[in-house]
Amino acid sequence: MDLDVPSFFGVLVIVFAAAKLLGAIAQRLGQPAVLGELIAGVLVGKSVLGMVHPEQETFHLLAEIGVVILIFEIGLETDLRRLIRLGGPAALVAIVGVVLPFAMGYGVCLGLGLDQGVCVVAGASLTATSIGITARVLADLGRLQEVESQIILGAAVLDDILGLIILAVVEGLAAGEPVTLVGVVTITTLAFGFLIAALLIGRWLVPALFRLLRNARMAGTMTMVAVMLAFGMAWLANSAGSALIIGSFAAGLLLSGTEHAEEVERGVAHLGHFFVPLFFVGVGAAVDVRALNPFDPANRSTLLLGGLLIVVAVLGKFLAGYAPFWIRARKNVIGIGMIPRGEVGLIFAQKGLTAKQLTAGQFSAITVMVMVTTFLAPPLLKWLLPPPSTPSRVPKPEGIEDLVTEA
Amino acid sequence: MDLDVPSFFGVLVIVFAAAKLLGAIAQRLGQPAVLGELIAGVLVGKSVLGMVHPEQETFHLLAEIGVVILIFEIGLETDLRRLIRLGGPAALVAIVGVVLPFAMGYGVCLGLGLDQGVCVVAGASLTATSIGITARVLADLGRLQEVESQIILGAAVLDDILGLIILAVVEGLAAGEPVTLVGVVTITTLAFGFLIAALLIGRWLVPALFRLLRNARMAGTMTMVAVMLAFGMAWLANSAGSALIIGSFAAGLLLSGTEHAEEVERGVAHLGHFFVPLFFVGVGAAVDVRALNPFDPANRSTLLLGGLLIVVAVLGKFLAGYAPFWIRARKNVIGIGMIPRGEVGLIFAQKGLTAKQLTAGQFSAITVMVMVTTFLAPPLLKWLLPPPSTPSRVPKPEGIEDLVTEA
Repeated sequence: MDLDVPSFFGVLVIVFAAAKLLGAIAQRLGQPAVLGELIAGVLVGKSVLGMVHPEQETFHLLAEIGVVILIFEIGLETDLRRLIRLGGPAALVAIVGVVLPFAMGYGVCLGLGLDQGVCVVAGASLTATSIGITARVLADLGRLQEVESQIILGAAVLDDILGLIILAVVEGLAAGEPVTLVGVVTITTLAFGFLIAALLIGRWLVPALFRLLRNARMAGTMTMVAVMLAFGMAWLANSAGSALIIGSFAAGLLLSGTEHAEEVERGVAHLGHFFVPLFFVGVGAAVDVRALNPFDPANRSTLLLGGLLIVVAVLGKFLAGYAPFWIRARKNVIGIGMIPRGEVGLIFAQKGLTAKQLTAGQFSAITVMVMVTTFLAPPLLKWLLPPPSTPSRVPKPEGIEDLVTEA
Repeated sequence: MDLDVPSFFGVLVIVFAAAKLLGAIAQRLGQPAVLGELIAGVLVGKSVLGMVHPEQETFHLLAEIGVVILIFEIGLETDLRRLIRLGGPAALVAIVGVVLPFAMGYGVCLGLGLDQGVCVVAGASLTATSIGITARVLADLGRLQEVESQIILGAAVLDDILGLIILAVVEGLAAGEPVTLVGVVTITTLAFGFLIAALLIGRWLVPALFRLLRNARMAGTMTMVAVMLAFGMAWLANSAGSALIIGSFAAGLLLSGTEHAEEVERGVAHLGHFFVPLFFVGVGAAVDVRALNPFDPANRSTLLLGGLLIVVAVLGKFLAGYAPFWIRARKNVIGIGMIPRGEVGLIFAQKGLTAKQLTAGQFSAITVMVMVTTFLAPPLLKWLLPPPSTPSRVPKPEGIEDLVTEA
């Protein structure tokens, strides 16, 4: 679908206005702004007003810039040493949070007598965590520096890597190709290898790059070079068989704690205000609420499957939060932080639909699960985590908190 | 041409890197950064490296955001009362700067024995001034507040309105439709009517809107509302039969001098660092340098026509600068500031090419004229206007000067 220049500006105005308005209303009601932005997306999206088409090329690309910038901002605020120190618990949360929902989802589908292909896709769509939603909520609540948040972020990054592997398996199945152990090992090695190599090489290269720029006389250079680093590493990560956001997260990690981090955070925050809402509105706009109408008998089996998948989705990730049983942290917060599937679950469902593995009804059931988990986590987290009354444990840098709350 | 997500990030990295690198080199050589960005565009564009295709939908739309934001920034720094006070001289510069180049270009083409249709398109492509290039250069030099600059900006805005009228006439001719006086009057009324109506209504509505937002608790709200105003008015202007940039210029004028202007300027500057280079690189990338090779005999007539058009283009606008003979201002600066045709000239040529009014060689000749005028003005202005050694006459607000020079 082509967009002409004037209607493009019209769409942007509608998206920004809806996101800001519903975000502000959500905040007035004591909810995170991102919930308002998701609902704004549903309203302007294909099933209600039909004004925004998230699959339209330019809109989709701008939304991708949004998620890349968001994850870059998260990386900028993440302390790599702490992340590594919490690597064990995070890995356990990630692995249990992939295996458990997959197994339960697969079981539910088999129990309902569905095809094995459908069961694999449904199980797969239950595995990946949408880091964007949770990270944004934690940032909105000013809790990004706490142990629970760091474990969630670590687990969500690992989830994305695991998700890549599962996606490759699902795509292989959908294409009727045999899934070989060699293929799975290759994807796994590439994904982890990229992150480790990027961090090892970057530790040397990035400070040298910024030293070169110290006497650049153009304003905004520092921020734009940081954006180039984030985009460039996203591109590299993808070319190396990994995911875009793994690259931009690595770029953020490399800059975090450097002398330029603060300037870059301030500059990138302005780009975030522009691009990040496009991503969340896009996620909301992809939802088809018509599949939820219980008065249409055609929706009954969709709603039954959807309901069961929701139970499995919430339970699987919630229990995963308790996997690192020995650590001192609020495990219910971790579990709930892992619940939102967001756009990642929708990508799996989309693959299944285009490969004709899923019927339209089964696709809608997965959509319902994704929607409910995505909309459930923000208010639950907000309820478990009231705004900190005492200063947080670690001095909180400025930046992503600014995305929403102003002093 | 479709762009997949990873190659999109790749293109953005290449564009930003080329723009920053060549912009910095241009500055080291004492030239405005925008010249470097244009050359960066030529290098990555279709005729050299072929990495950036400015006609690709998403790139084109992002570049349009760039020019809309640039003109919004210019509007934010423009004092409306001063612009009106200088309205007489500006109008004279605009009108003479349209009539003289058109007449001379038309005459040259007739003299070369070309078709009347070709003569009209060539003449039309000589009329419009690319406000983006000159405004950016004046901003880079810290001269935006001077009388000459204000006259150039006013004339360039009027030029865009006149350009719309001429464009409609050219499109009518290309479609074989009769050009009626009623049609021309309608377009003219719409274009001027929009600007006047927007300024009259906006003077009341915009302050009320921002009062409503005073207790908004989301960071970045002020900037994003300003961006929405700019995009919304660009869209409205276009819907009302005027041009996008007329709308965003009006939005900037409405906010300039308000208590929020400074905050908005700072926030929008960050978006400008991202989007504005995309516009200039896009202008450069559209240039086909192969048409310039004098050793290819096929290019001889192209180069002859191009050479004559360059003489006419420079002379016509330069003389227009002297039209308001009575004012105390450096008329050579005004004339040279009006010279760049930039993307506006290319749009005319493009229309002529797609309507089969022009041959490929004639299209290239116009491209050469556009290219040379665009590349000529920045160094000439820089040479006429050394960086101010004394403080400028009007206290200079921060903002767009930050686009390039840092204290």
